[in-house]
Amino acid sequence: MTELTAAAPVQWPHGKKCAVAFTFDVDGESPLLTTDAAYADRMGTMSHQAYGPLVGVPRLLDILGEFDVPGTFFVPGYTAHRHPRPIRSIAESGHEIAHHGYLHESLVGATEDTERAILQAGLDALHEVAGVRPTGYRAPMWEMNWHTPKLLAEFGFTYDSTLMDSDHPYELAVGASDSLVELPVSWALDDWQQYCFIPDFSGTGLIETPAKAIELWRAELEAMRDVGGAWILTNHPFLSGRPGRAAALRNFIAEVKAMDDVWIASMSQIAAHVRQQQLTPRTLTRPEFSPVPVKEN
Amino acid sequence: MTELTAAAPVQWPHGKKCAVAFTFDVDGESPLLTTDAAYADRMGTMSHQAYGPLVGVPRLLDILGEFDVPGTFFVPGYTAHRHPRPIRSIAESGHEIAHHGYLHESLVGATEDTERAILQAGLDALHEVAGVRPTGYRAPMWEMNWHTPKLLAEFGFTYDSTLMDSDHPYELAVGASDSLVELPVSWALDDWQQYCFIPDFSGTGLIETPAKAIELWRAELEAMRDVGGAWILTNHPFLSGRPGRAAALRNFIAEVKAMDDVWIASMSQIAAHVRQQQLTPRTLTRPEFSPVPVKEN
Amino acid sequence: MTELTAAAPVQWPHGKKCAVAFTFDVDGESPLLTTDAAYADRMGTMSHQAYGPLVGVPRLLDILGEFDVPGTFFVPGYTAHRHPRPIRSIAESGHEIAHHGYLHESLVGATEDTERAILQAGLDALHEVAGVRPTGYRAPMWEMNWHTPKLLAEFGFTYDSTLMDSDHPYELAVGASDSLVELPVSWALDDWQQYCFIPDFSGTGLIETPAKAIELWRAELEAMRDVGGAWILTNHPFLSGRPGRAAALRNFIAEVKAMDDVWIASMSQIAAHVRQQQLTPRTLTRPEFSPVPVKEN
Amino acid sequence: MTELTAAAPVQWPHGKKCAVAFTFDVDGESPLLTTDAAYADRMGTMSHQAYGPLVGVPRLLDILGEFDVPGTFFVPGYTAHRHPRPIRSIAESGHEIAHHGYLHESLVGATEDTERAILQAGLDALHEVAGVRPTGYRAPMWEMNWHTPKLLAEFGFTYDSTLMDSDHPYELAVGASDSLVELPVSWALDDWQQYCFIPDFSGTGLIETPAKAIELWRAELEAMRDVGGAWILTNHPFLSGRPGRAAALRNFIAEVKAMDDVWIASMSQIAAHVRQQQLTPRTLTRPEFSPVPVKEN
Repeated sequence: MTELTAAAPVQWPHGKKCAVAFTFDVDGESPLLTTDAAYADRMGTMSHQAYGPLVGVPRLLDILGEFDVPGTFFVPGYTAHRHPRPIRSIAESGHEIAHHGYLHESLVGATEDTERAILQAGLDALHEVAGVRPTGYRAPMWEMNWHTPKLLAEFGFTYDSTLMDSDHPYELAVGASDSLVELPVSWALDDWQQYCFIPDFSGTGLIETPAKAIELWRAELEAMRDVGGAWILTNHPFLSGRPGRAAALRNFIAEVKAMDDVWIASMSQIAAHVRQQQLTPRTLTRPEFSPVPVKEN
Repeated sequence: MTELTAAAPVQWPHGKKCAVAFTFDVDGESPLLTTDAAYADRMGTMSHQAYGPLVGVPRLLDILGEFDVPGTFFVPGYTAHRHPRPIRSIAESGHEIAHHGYLHESLVGATEDTERAILQAGLDALHEVAGVRPTGYRAPMWEMNWHTPKLLAEFGFTYDSTLMDSDHPYELAVGASDSLVELPVSWALDDWQQYCFIPDFSGTGLIETPAKAIELWRAELEAMRDVGGAWILTNHPFLSGRPGRAAALRNFIAEVKAMDDVWIASMSQIAAHVRQQQLTPRTLTRPEFSPVPVKEN
Repeated sequence: MTELTAAAPVQWPHGKKCAVAFTFDVDGESPLLTTDAAYADRMGTMSHQAYGPLVGVPRLLDILGEFDVPGTFFVPGYTAHRHPRPIRSIAESGHEIAHHGYLHESLVGATEDTERAILQAGLDALHEVAGVRPTGYRAPMWEMNWHTPKLLAEFGFTYDSTLMDSDHPYELAVGASDSLVELPVSWALDDWQQYCFIPDFSGTGLIETPAKAIELWRAELEAMRDVGGAWILTNHPFLSGRPGRAAALRNFIAEVKAMDDVWIASMSQIAAHVRQQQLTPRTLTRPEFSPVPVKEN
Repeated sequence: MTELTAAAPVQWPHGKKCAVAFTFDVDGESPLLTTDAAYADRMGTMSHQAYGPLVGVPRLLDILGEFDVPGTFFVPGYTAHRHPRPIRSIAESGHEIAHHGYLHESLVGATEDTERAILQAGLDALHEVAGVRPTGYRAPMWEMNWHTPKLLAEFGFTYDSTLMDSDHPYELAVGASDSLVELPVSWALDDWQQYCFIPDFSGTGLIETPAKAIELWRAELEAMRDVGGAWILTNHPFLSGRPGRAAALRNFIAEVKAMDDVWIASMSQIAAHVRQQQLTPRTLTRPEFSPVPVKEN
């Protein structure tokens, strides 16, 4: 088996020390509906999820606009169908919209044909609602199959943002001659773990303060400036759109904006920059292993 | 499908920036008994729940009285039957009593007739014990059905406080010509997630400090003052009635009382004020969706 | 049904404002063995539990001795059988030993005869190993049956420390003419929720800092001084016996010792004092309830 | 049954007050693959685990090198097979490599022959990849069988680091005439509980800040200096190798390095020192117990 190698550092524009992206997974109702259609009957839970596109998205767009910071919104196709106005307003405000499945479908065990149908459905919805053709993709629940990158290349995506094996973006080899830019994520840079509680669906009830979440993200950013990678934060509008959390995020964006060694960019801008560097693609391989045979007594 | 729209801001009385309500869900033994009648045999757990009406309610009434703050108590009918004196004392102290089911029944999958019977049983118990006829309702576990608002209107309720899709109260359309005032809640403004541990029933054991809980609630209130919505806190007397938590809540109420841009009111006062504004009702719709068909290999 | 009433405040000796007890549940291996005998095969887990009596108990005895503070140790009979020397040293150091089951058996669903056998086995073990005859009892997992108090009276116990419906100790009515002193506990005053992680048995992995645990306990104590009840802390030597936690507890005991309005006592001392007050016993009753019948569509 | 006794304190070199070891469990993909081979299909999860050897190990080696601190790396054989270069670099940098199973196999219920096969497979892999023959062992998930120490002695290991019943290292009796040095661990000194979230595998989502984790570890170290034992920290490169956590660990290592009463050493150095003291071996025994028979009504 070919040995995996770590990604090499990327040179950032204008001598900046690291790249920063504020990304938003606009899940809305979809993660619940794809898990069990009966969640549609729960008016309370559905209202909790609708808060994201209805209230969170406009509030977060205002904050991004206030600081002239480009955001990247990963939008399941169904969210666009159910909430067309807020999704359209993302595009109209000049922010990036990227692919996040149609109904936030789990790809665990999905066949290539199923994934192709999902990719097409998501593209159709985003085009129909917001007139956009995304260049980037992020798998729901940050989980995909070893065949997924090939499909993403087939559909003409430039970048993926699902994997977690690097601080530095890299070219991910797809077959012998193709590649995707990979913009890696990290569970420590996700608001779900800090804030999410949806009864009978997710979370134990733990709801952290905004100050604690920001402390966590700041610690990673301070260190990433020394490491030189890309610090990619993922927020969910149904969570971080709440007043106290949005206010804390706003203040943190102000802090980051004031750092002169940091390049704040959209994901497609980062991907385009990485592509220009003509990096040697990394080949990732499925682990092969032989368990030690169990001998019976 | 008609597109959902976000609720518009409400003008508050006397130029106040936001509304504040301190609400209490006086669950007592009921959430456990409705889940499994065998909990009645657990003397320890039952004593833990009885702390709410027996000790928590009088202590919280004292605190509200000290600061002349109106409270709103959502009381399952069974709590009133089992603990009539503390429930009566809520009314006698001039605070509002609202409907919270009879035995804190889950409404997931409940038919209209079942819900009608529960609504009637709760009304009967509250009238019998405390001589009140509540104008407000909050569904147990903050979960209801798409048909529930119609039933609430049928029973003559003015407001509901179950949904989570807005910072601003709104008129919720019920059929073509009727409406309910909705006073929305938020999981971040609930003490259950911070304090609740009931073995074999709820919680992982996480018990936060009162200082942490207050920090979370304060962050949301500070931000809500800018947003202009209604900040509605939910405490459970069996949790927040404990000495250290009640003391922290008391100090926080003193803080809030000293904010001159905040309107502290009971839920029915807020609902009456919202109703006066003659807002256009919002129509909420059950999500309709077509999953991407899975193609077999 | 007779209405429950809250316990009235107790007058404390020498005009002190509240009573304080440092109690220790010396569970050792027993809670695991009673759940599944196969835990006995796990050498790692067994070593984790043995830390309590082997290392935690002597360390905690040193701390209590340093400040001349009386401790109360609830010891399952099996802990005494497996670890006789540390259990004997508790008694030799002048601290109280109380009953905590034989193998930390769950009483959920237990018959009276089973409970009698457990009570006898625990008494036999504590007498055999440490020469003591405890006057107090605490049910494992703080859970007992409505018939348990009668059995405790039958066996001649003076007090129980299992229930959670009061800040103030009280006389718990047993039948028409007998009673037990109840010294109530609280989940917020238990180190298990702050520190415990035993893979495949308890905990999600959450391990809090000693500073956080002490902050929680201090908040409750400060408030209990105003309330005038009994602040009863429960620590487990296999958890709070670890160096950092024991050091934090030591510093906190020094703090409490310096409070001149607090009566630090053993549980049996508190129980004897409460008994002297000749309080009217409280009658606790099993909840009776009639669920709203579900009507089918 | 022979009574267990606590381990006596060890005298540390040069009058130091306690020993300190920074250890790293380089699990990589193995804990998931041994649980369910289907995890190999999850490209996202596999990338999350690969971060450990690919990115975490080099970063942590740099930090250890900066402060000239000897590290001890417990490496499952499969991690060495899949990631030979980083594992080789551990040895080349002069740090210790120890045994941690082949595929991080659970030993719960494993027979002696199965364990022998695993021990051999791990030894073979570490020798093949890094040219080393470890003298130390730590069981995966810190769980082993009562027969495991005998097997470790049979394979010539000097020390084990799996048990949790002591602050002080000790000689663990193996049969009548042999022994292993035991270097005990503690769940409070493990980064897994603070940082780990792997969907569908481990964790509830709780992700603590590096500052909180360090606060916990510092509290235990401060106290261990007084206790005089060995403070053994366990970090996982896939967790603590992340930029913010590694930076916090680096600063903490700088702090510890500046303590002049602390002996920082590799695990094999500590084991060799303990062996020199010719301590009387402790005999640990499986708990034997007779449950109280349940009498039916």
